[in-house]
Amino acid sequence: MSTPDPSSAIGVFDSGIGGLTVVRALMDRLPFENITYFGDTARVPYGVKSVATIEHFTQQIVDFLLQRQVKLLIIACNTMAAVAADAVRASAPVPVLDVIEAGAANAAAITRSGGIGVIGTPTTINSNAYARAIHQLNQDCRVYSQACPLFVPLVEEGWLDHTVTRLTAQEYLKPVFVEHIDTLVLGCTHYPLLKPLLQDVAGSRIQLVDSAISIADRAAELLQRQGLANPSRERPQYRYHVTDVPVRFQTIGERFLGRSLGQVELVQW
Amino acid sequence: MSTPDPSSAIGVFDSGIGGLTVVRALMDRLPFENITYFGDTARVPYGVKSVATIEHFTQQIVDFLLQRQVKLLIIACNTMAAVAADAVRASAPVPVLDVIEAGAANAAAITRSGGIGVIGTPTTINSNAYARAIHQLNQDCRVYSQACPLFVPLVEEGWLDHTVTRLTAQEYLKPVFVEHIDTLVLGCTHYPLLKPLLQDVAGSRIQLVDSAISIADRAAELLQRQGLANPSRERPQYRYHVTDVPVRFQTIGERFLGRSLGQVELVQW
Repeated sequence: MSTPDPSSAIGVFDSGIGGLTVVRALMDRLPFENITYFGDTARVPYGVKSVATIEHFTQQIVDFLLQRQVKLLIIACNTMAAVAADAVRASAPVPVLDVIEAGAANAAAITRSGGIGVIGTPTTINSNAYARAIHQLNQDCRVYSQACPLFVPLVEEGWLDHTVTRLTAQEYLKPVFVEHIDTLVLGCTHYPLLKPLLQDVAGSRIQLVDSAISIADRAAELLQRQGLANPSRERPQYRYHVTDVPVRFQTIGERFLGRSLGQVELVQW
Repeated sequence: MSTPDPSSAIGVFDSGIGGLTVVRALMDRLPFENITYFGDTARVPYGVKSVATIEHFTQQIVDFLLQRQVKLLIIACNTMAAVAADAVRASAPVPVLDVIEAGAANAAAITRSGGIGVIGTPTTINSNAYARAIHQLNQDCRVYSQACPLFVPLVEEGWLDHTVTRLTAQEYLKPVFVEHIDTLVLGCTHYPLLKPLLQDVAGSRIQLVDSAISIADRAAELLQRQGLANPSRERPQYRYHVTDVPVRFQTIGERFLGRSLGQVELVQW
């Protein structure tokens, strides 16, 4: 396995455009790194599909990014991280980071009471991947998980501070709050956009863990440690590949990215 | 083009499992017809994808059903009907019905004031297909359309009579109701499950048009007229093909179908 080239891009992938919240955190944390993003917008969402289908789709995306010589793979999709991260790590010739290990590590580090809530898509939650990852770091943590299937469509509708979203959050989180958690992991790349509303519903005593920020910190540390940080101080290149350009793609994408989307290339499979 | 065999199945297809509401209406209306269903559950939802992608996916499904010798094709997906029905009709060697022409014809027939509301997914609404179909039948009708992207996830969550769903419906339908409509077309196969709630929100002076029932009526009429009704009085065969068996598939599918799902075959592309 040859050493990756430090000037190569970081490859970030997601089932759709939610992973742009991870790209945004990487741009902020690592302003000189080139980033190549892949969003499988023709087949999104993965969160309700079977494990076999998700594994198959993940491998296709990893192959696509490796052909483009990325130096680091970041699984920005919680669903793929939950069911396919081990397979990606086993076969990839470059380092692999995923949002679940990043979010779990952050949660285990900051909880004081040991009570941690995790919210995500049905597939992520059913996989129990966050609870496993947290327990590997600290067996004494108590993890309470809750699937929130309506949060993704609510974010995509732009109802980030809407009564409907607030009522939905209250209903989903009620059984988690009764467990006296002090930390709540946002286990889906769409959820950072709901942070103000969720913090409000959760109250000030519960700390929210944003996996996008957690993984950007880990990526910075890994690149430094492995000598893979880009030495260039030129303006980096950002490339976006998607399998479909759906209705409202630009609007939603830019909401996630927090800036305008540059060149977007359509990949047809 | 050879005449189809009356004992062959009716082919019904949808982007997911929402089309099972059409299968349910067909089972009730045509109890001796064999039905072969195809749901593209690995790539659902289509409602937010581009026209080119939807056309490509539709052709794959039509080829699959034609290989199984169906005598009639029913496009149970509003999104596919909106963007790909003409292409399917142009190439298929069997009759083709779609939910949009069925719902539009029903709405144009029952409206008294000429004010018709249409609700559906963003792609269906943006295609303007219902308005076009209604205007072809009656140029004097006024059509007011509204995309309701949250209704599909709300139905799949099972929140069929929930405060969140009611508030969402009130918000979506407000601009439609101010136009003094007397007819509201449910332009998505998921929406029949919201009929009681929507009727309540709409009030008793607005008639709801359920495209699933409309198309079952048209199918019955077409089979009779073209001599394609199945002469057998034996218990019919129902076959279900899906591209993925997602989490909660059985629960949601049976809610749509109104009875237990029989043999489901997984198709891997």
